[in-house]
Amino acid sequence: MLSKNKIKFIKSLEKKKERTELGLFLAEGNKLVADILNAFECELLIAKPVWLATQGDIKAKELIVVDEDDIEKTSLLKNPQDVLAVFVQRSAVLNPETLKDELTLMLDGIQDPGNLGTIIRLADWFGIKNIICSPDCADVYNPKTVQASMGGIAHVRVFYRSLPELLNELPDLPVYGTFLDGKNIYCEKLTSNGLIIMGNEGNGIRRTLEKHITHRLYIPNFPPEAQSTESLNVAVATAITCAEFRRQQIYSES
Amino acid sequence: MLSKNKIKFIKSLEKKKERTELGLFLAEGNKLVADILNAFECELLIAKPVWLATQGDIKAKELIVVDEDDIEKTSLLKNPQDVLAVFVQRSAVLNPETLKDELTLMLDGIQDPGNLGTIIRLADWFGIKNIICSPDCADVYNPKTVQASMGGIAHVRVFYRSLPELLNELPDLPVYGTFLDGKNIYCEKLTSNGLIIMGNEGNGIRRTLEKHITHRLYIPNFPPEAQSTESLNVAVATAITCAEFRRQQIYSES
Repeated sequence: MLSKNKIKFIKSLEKKKERTELGLFLAEGNKLVADILNAFECELLIAKPVWLATQGDIKAKELIVVDEDDIEKTSLLKNPQDVLAVFVQRSAVLNPETLKDELTLMLDGIQDPGNLGTIIRLADWFGIKNIICSPDCADVYNPKTVQASMGGIAHVRVFYRSLPELLNELPDLPVYGTFLDGKNIYCEKLTSNGLIIMGNEGNGIRRTLEKHITHRLYIPNFPPEAQSTESLNVAVATAITCAEFRRQQIYSES
Repeated sequence: MLSKNKIKFIKSLEKKKERTELGLFLAEGNKLVADILNAFECELLIAKPVWLATQGDIKAKELIVVDEDDIEKTSLLKNPQDVLAVFVQRSAVLNPETLKDELTLMLDGIQDPGNLGTIIRLADWFGIKNIICSPDCADVYNPKTVQASMGGIAHVRVFYRSLPELLNELPDLPVYGTFLDGKNIYCEKLTSNGLIIMGNEGNGIRRTLEKHITHRLYIPNFPPEAQSTESLNVAVATAITCAEFRRQQIYSES
């Protein structure tokens, strides 16, 4: 059985302050925990026997076998699964030079943890290794971000930096941004390296970044003459943009 | 000031049973309510003066002007805005014949209300007028769905039907589905009409539907040789698929 203190400790990881102070984060779910177990140092693993039976050797500082009841008391999910785990946050140093030959995402004020997690997941799919977030973006270790990333946090490195400062430091690179008045993404020649900046859910890309953008892109709606006043969810727009970069890189005949 | 009964009534609309019995739904947020105010019959509008000042004539059966405090007590959102409104649900009859020349989405067991709302929003962007959901999909009038649809529910019609039954009734149409072992979507010739089936978040498309599918599609990851064991979020996969259909329809030179 789990002690009250243990439960309190785990639940405290919902708060960014606690996570940062302790350098820890929480992950839940049978597939997610299995997927990242070897990528992060595991501080504490709490699991039902049914999940443990599906795993090989488990490397965790502390392992507690529990029943349904304990998981339900501890979980932050609406529908708790069979395992939750506390991992050690990773820290990595960003070397701007390595970005020269790659496609990199820059996120400017993405507020919603679910959107950030979805973007990490799709970055993983599209072979994007680094995401650079402005300091006011959602926290990569928010349990909702971890959940939505579906293991993507094990493969994609997420940095927090002042974007205008970093853009001044970076080598000469194409810098793409999506705008409602940009150029049709399907009519532009997209490169296999560079930065793609995605803006805040409500306000888009900040003015202070606009001068760094060398290519303003637009995802056309349908039919093209409809002049929609609507917009796309930022994770959806990021997905369509990344997919088009990779399509042109591999499958375009021109 | 809002009566306790009014607050209770509004909060009750979080539950599907109540919504269905009353034929009503709740929408919140300054832009969202403004966007759908003319598309749905408004039963009750609760707003701060600051929002009302931004609007022209308002057609609502009952209008209550409130202060911050009342909105906070009533709202289902983490960050309440200046208005919330109760609307009458719309009912429409699906005429299968009208689907013949259009692109239509079919959703097979999409569980998450946020995913459903995001899909409605992107369907609106890509000029998809009808979405047909299996009966076990999330409810289009769930407040989280309405929220994520960002006004898309005003333009896109959402039906609930037994998908296998409907597929038997429908005229001869191309039926697309996305699978991990499908054919590369960028190498297939996509039509400007037909059905696109998207499957459940965890389990994909149900076996009973597979025999109806004439084209199995796959969104390639990058690099192509990586053989990812991961997958894409269903709203993200829907977005990339719809974008590619429309790109081929309009911008492809082949």
